[in-house]
Amino acid sequence: MTPAWLALPCAAPDAAAGGRAAARQAQLTKPPGSLGRLEALAVQLAALQGTDRPAVERVQVCVFAGDHGVAAQGVSAFPQAVTAQMLANFVAGGAAVSVLARAQGAALEVVNLGTAADPGPLLGVIDARVAPMTADFTTEPAMTEAQLGAALDAGRAAVQRAVQAGAELFIGGEMGIANTTAAAALACALLREKPVALCGPGTGLDAAGVAHKATVIGRALALHGPHVDNPLEALRRLGGFEIVALAGAAIACAHAGLPLLVDGFIVTAAVLAACRIEPRVHDWLLFAHRSAEPGHARLLAALDAAPLLALDMRLGEGSGALAALPLLRLACAVHAGMATFAEAGVAGGAL
Amino acid sequence: MTPAWLALPCAAPDAAAGGRAAARQAQLTKPPGSLGRLEALAVQLAALQGTDRPAVERVQVCVFAGDHGVAAQGVSAFPQAVTAQMLANFVAGGAAVSVLARAQGAALEVVNLGTAADPGPLLGVIDARVAPMTADFTTEPAMTEAQLGAALDAGRAAVQRAVQAGAELFIGGEMGIANTTAAAALACALLREKPVALCGPGTGLDAAGVAHKATVIGRALALHGPHVDNPLEALRRLGGFEIVALAGAAIACAHAGLPLLVDGFIVTAAVLAACRIEPRVHDWLLFAHRSAEPGHARLLAALDAAPLLALDMRLGEGSGALAALPLLRLACAVHAGMATFAEAGVAGGAL
Repeated sequence: MTPAWLALPCAAPDAAAGGRAAARQAQLTKPPGSLGRLEALAVQLAALQGTDRPAVERVQVCVFAGDHGVAAQGVSAFPQAVTAQMLANFVAGGAAVSVLARAQGAALEVVNLGTAADPGPLLGVIDARVAPMTADFTTEPAMTEAQLGAALDAGRAAVQRAVQAGAELFIGGEMGIANTTAAAALACALLREKPVALCGPGTGLDAAGVAHKATVIGRALALHGPHVDNPLEALRRLGGFEIVALAGAAIACAHAGLPLLVDGFIVTAAVLAACRIEPRVHDWLLFAHRSAEPGHARLLAALDAAPLLALDMRLGEGSGALAALPLLRLACAVHAGMATFAEAGVAGGAL
Repeated sequence: MTPAWLALPCAAPDAAAGGRAAARQAQLTKPPGSLGRLEALAVQLAALQGTDRPAVERVQVCVFAGDHGVAAQGVSAFPQAVTAQMLANFVAGGAAVSVLARAQGAALEVVNLGTAADPGPLLGVIDARVAPMTADFTTEPAMTEAQLGAALDAGRAAVQRAVQAGAELFIGGEMGIANTTAAAALACALLREKPVALCGPGTGLDAAGVAHKATVIGRALALHGPHVDNPLEALRRLGGFEIVALAGAAIACAHAGLPLLVDGFIVTAAVLAACRIEPRVHDWLLFAHRSAEPGHARLLAALDAAPLLALDMRLGEGSGALAALPLLRLACAVHAGMATFAEAGVAGGAL
């Protein structure tokens, strides 16, 4: 049984607020359009937030972590123990996402969906453990229906906490050894692509490692066959708990009308699944960056996305989204803070 | 007589500090290289600042403004009076560069090299007026040798003030109606390109306007002939006072060992001229963005530059550089603030 809340209605962006913001942009002391995508961002955020003066000061970052049975197939450069170790690093403040969030005053939450190693009690980590890891999807579905529902619920709960805290923007991140393999398998199912088109080095595989990863994914796709034509079933059979939580979070953002700044390859695969379940999720997305993971460009194209950055980042955790956050904030700052031609007594406003 | 200070020696980046920073990056809790250009930025800044913990908290933005005789040829969508009006807008805080600097705690200085309309006394504008505008370079050199020297000196003085104030990064911006025409003419001379290859809409010309602009530049290049093979003479004959000041500032940054974050089309043309005068200027450059002005990509290629952003911005003022500033700061933050594998007890540091 998948959760009934998936069928709730999505919020609708406020086109009138977007229109008012666009009209204001045309009056600011600059040649029309000369701030490029910063102008478009301000107008988009205005429509999403239903105000002609959007702001993204209160940002909630949520890192979902989970381990993967498919790690047994030797598809990652790092040992599985790292997932639990990184949970501690996230909340201790030493991980990239920790520093990037702290430097920008963004709230960081970590949700443990289940790790192979027990990280012990960690202050600041929300315990949403579904199981120590998913099943190896090369031999069986990654999770049961109950586990799928629990992971979706965990994503939704994170968004509900963000809404309660007054967040103006949600960023989902992830951690999970072998999760580029799960994300690539999911993307193959959603896009009906061959594994070689969507497999990449992840955290650092060499060419032979990437080829092996593609073979592993090919075996899984052969096993699961047409079952994965359904996006929820693709999530259940090929996903990870953290990937499913991210998909649930994306759908919950659309329900709540909370803009979601999309991170890298794994988050984008989860978001694509969410859009296949509920197409209006797409209204609430902003795309932060194109990562160095080769399959990311293909996923972004499937979502008709033009990300803001392309800095060869491939870390995940939400790091790419946090690198793009300043652009959203600066877009809001110039939108709110610039003088109009009339206010400044500058000629040219009628152009 | 060009100023004698142009021949002073340039500072040299500290390769050892860069090496120490690279070694630290390899120990931080992330797959090696996974922060992409943020890692490279931290290492580059470490070498430029001579420390393995670089910082760009204290940033000096200097907007150089000047009017252009070539505006009489009808090459801009805006009237020449706007240059002086924008000086007031800069210091009143209503321009894009004002908001972008304020939002990031960057110091903003405005230097008036000479405007057609007298802006009157403006608190916060440094008076470095050379003349009300350059001469129309389609009929004579844009400026005399004395004016060239005065404008170069004004750029150097701005950098010296920045150094005195303890700046860790310098950003030069510009304002001047018709200055994409001057910058394109200068770029044609430096790159031996035809005007159509480097002309664009600037603040908003239509196709006929761009074609006219190219014709105007073609006339100028025919008039000045081989004189402009010399970069200083190209600046004198085709530049603007603000463009010459930017070239002087770039050379002064290299002398002082102050990193310069390069803005858009006009600043890049000035910086290319500076590099032709003193090739070691290039060591001190970081490239912020590729603007929507079509010729910018050609200029960046000539400087072997891979800018951080490409957001269809085309405003100038330093706005593109200020949009990229957060990436430099975040690169420094993760470099300084992340835990090492050993500190965090995370496996994989030996990979």
